[in-house]
Amino acid sequence: MGGVKDEVAPLGTAEVIAVGSELLGSTRVDTNSLFLAGRLASLGIELRAKAVVGDDHARLASVFRTALARADLVILTGGLGPTDDDVTREVVTGALGLESEEDPAIVAQIEERFARRGLRMPEVNRRQAMVPRGATSLDNPHGTAPGLFIEHGPHLVVLLPGPPRELQPMFDRLCERVLVERAGAARLHKEMLFIAGRGESHVEEISQPIYSRWTAEKPPVETTILAMPGQVELHLTLRSQDAEAGARRVREARDELAAALGRDVFSTDGRSMEEVVGALLRGHRRTISVAESCTGGLLMSRLTDVAGSSDYVVGGAVAYSNDAKTELAGVPPELIAAHGAVSEPVAVALADGIRARTGSSLALGVTGIAGPGGGSAQKPVGTVAIALTGSGLTTHVRTFSFFGGRPQVKFQAAQAALDMVRRQLQTG
Amino acid sequence: MGGVKDEVAPLGTAEVIAVGSELLGSTRVDTNSLFLAGRLASLGIELRAKAVVGDDHARLASVFRTALARADLVILTGGLGPTDDDVTREVVTGALGLESEEDPAIVAQIEERFARRGLRMPEVNRRQAMVPRGATSLDNPHGTAPGLFIEHGPHLVVLLPGPPRELQPMFDRLCERVLVERAGAARLHKEMLFIAGRGESHVEEISQPIYSRWTAEKPPVETTILAMPGQVELHLTLRSQDAEAGARRVREARDELAAALGRDVFSTDGRSMEEVVGALLRGHRRTISVAESCTGGLLMSRLTDVAGSSDYVVGGAVAYSNDAKTELAGVPPELIAAHGAVSEPVAVALADGIRARTGSSLALGVTGIAGPGGGSAQKPVGTVAIALTGSGLTTHVRTFSFFGGRPQVKFQAAQAALDMVRRQLQTG
Repeated sequence: MGGVKDEVAPLGTAEVIAVGSELLGSTRVDTNSLFLAGRLASLGIELRAKAVVGDDHARLASVFRTALARADLVILTGGLGPTDDDVTREVVTGALGLESEEDPAIVAQIEERFARRGLRMPEVNRRQAMVPRGATSLDNPHGTAPGLFIEHGPHLVVLLPGPPRELQPMFDRLCERVLVERAGAARLHKEMLFIAGRGESHVEEISQPIYSRWTAEKPPVETTILAMPGQVELHLTLRSQDAEAGARRVREARDELAAALGRDVFSTDGRSMEEVVGALLRGHRRTISVAESCTGGLLMSRLTDVAGSSDYVVGGAVAYSNDAKTELAGVPPELIAAHGAVSEPVAVALADGIRARTGSSLALGVTGIAGPGGGSAQKPVGTVAIALTGSGLTTHVRTFSFFGGRPQVKFQAAQAALDMVRRQLQTG
Repeated sequence: MGGVKDEVAPLGTAEVIAVGSELLGSTRVDTNSLFLAGRLASLGIELRAKAVVGDDHARLASVFRTALARADLVILTGGLGPTDDDVTREVVTGALGLESEEDPAIVAQIEERFARRGLRMPEVNRRQAMVPRGATSLDNPHGTAPGLFIEHGPHLVVLLPGPPRELQPMFDRLCERVLVERAGAARLHKEMLFIAGRGESHVEEISQPIYSRWTAEKPPVETTILAMPGQVELHLTLRSQDAEAGARRVREARDELAAALGRDVFSTDGRSMEEVVGALLRGHRRTISVAESCTGGLLMSRLTDVAGSSDYVVGGAVAYSNDAKTELAGVPPELIAAHGAVSEPVAVALADGIRARTGSSLALGVTGIAGPGGGSAQKPVGTVAIALTGSGLTTHVRTFSFFGGRPQVKFQAAQAALDMVRRQLQTG
């Protein structure tokens, strides 16, 4: 296929179609497209859309035709089996106006596969040996369904079997043999910024005037904002023929946004908040303990999700009741009586108390109302007081108002507590 | 909308389009369509295809137009935010040839949402208040983006925000108010069994001879097995025109499997393990505390994920280091020296120690190796000792060997600990 490269335009865009009625229920998702998306991205081929269709001839034909009209490369997964409801081969052959014939070599391979298990090949399996004229059959060492690879004008159509262990090696071989050469020189470069302590609209206000300038560049840097409670993400991508220049440009773009957003950016390398905080604790040779109420163990659980965290996490108390706050973290009952359990003095006492007991150098105290019950007019659901104390450290304490249901309040409070540690250690 | 039912054909088919470039990468799948598929199935509306499209105006318009040509009901999720790359509202409005105007009531709602947090509404959020003429706006009590519901000839178009906690209640209200009336007479009936303490193949061995008989019934009961570390689920579905008979048949089927699987079934009503355990603790007027090592707070966090759990969860200690086990849960250092931190005597001492400090009636002690480091030939990664102790209770203690990475070991250990409480209270 050495000559192909010079004759046709490189593959720039792709769509993926997963075929199978079982993927339209409420339990199973198509995960093959995640694998394919990763491989395509590394080839610089942009995945523009994906679809899931049931085992329905007319509907698949309609989805396939529109995909072919929009994308250079169309990949179909699944529906290559021997039974009546495996329609992919027939639909694609029909839509491209091709004639098929039985490939005796494939029949022999399938027969041999059955023979190895002492079985005769059922007649229905002959369908899997039908190959459209001009198409290339793709070997399947892990199953009976061969794949197909069809050139159609400037378009490429690829048919892959549904099971991941059949699909993945087959696609990797196709990448090596065909797609690397057809993809052209362009590659996709990607950088991310993770932001805490600032909502989506405010991140947008600061970043939009910057990234909107980049869309006119050639090649453009494209920006996507992703928001969840407690975390906003900016994803930057750039497609470039020049690997070095492309990587450099998207890094510069990332750094420009990072400078504008300042200390609210907690990660520029994909690490989670707990990983960033863990690395800072390790780097500063600090240990930490936690006394948490409304986060109910989530703060400790996130800290300990990081492999090796036992090096800097000493321990913690989940002090749900007032008595537990006293018993486990040494909070004076008078303090709770005077200020209420959800108050800044109690947050500080939780942190100081657990630090005294564990001997950690830093400690976090968290007390609040996760809801849905327990709120009041003065202290509505979502009110959370968080304190960070430590030896040789000015005590930080702040009261937050979080939105959302119980899980969202728990997550945001844990995120804000971890972020307090991050800001402290990045300064110090 | 009372008259609508008589005038137009019932909604028979649907397509779902998820909008968002982040859903075209190699890490995130669209899970909203699973929720929607379940709801549509229960209304007897057939989900025929689904698609994922990036934040791209032209491409979304193309995908939307072809979906509208094929399906009675088109649901779009995501892309309703305030920023430039939120294109769903504009694309649909344009494709349907509608004019939009700003709805002052929605602006006021969004402004109020910001004001409650002491913030000014950024100007960009005005985009979220644009409503096409003739469309119905759908309230969003959980976020700023309202949904939209548009009648277009015999078709219905629904726009929903991307975050599941905003989308789900909004769609449920739409089902009640509109879709129930517009759907036909067939309904999907569904029951589930959740199982702990038994692997997928063992569940299959027991249940397959039973459920395989049901596929020949008219209408058939269909069974799906879903397995994750620590939990196996059996999902039973039946589609029937006769609501009462259908519901009864699928409940009978569930009960037959539940009888065969016995005490390993922990839930037949969709409740999670922590909800089941919480209800048992409440019902038995028991309180609980936890001293956990390798689960690192996850066990407490799961217990406190349940609303109202402060009624029976007293508190807990996350005792990561040996010193913390002694300091926070009173484990004698000699015991750790004699048996090792990961041992049944230490698990029992953790439970007894935290129970003595908190005064709870039950307590769990968990100690183990979550990995990836810390394993040995004698105690490999995944070894976890779990104890349940309580007043007037024979102490239970058991050593488990869990498979998988750090998050899987943490989850399975928390699951096994909760399951120990469940089995105890369901007996007693």
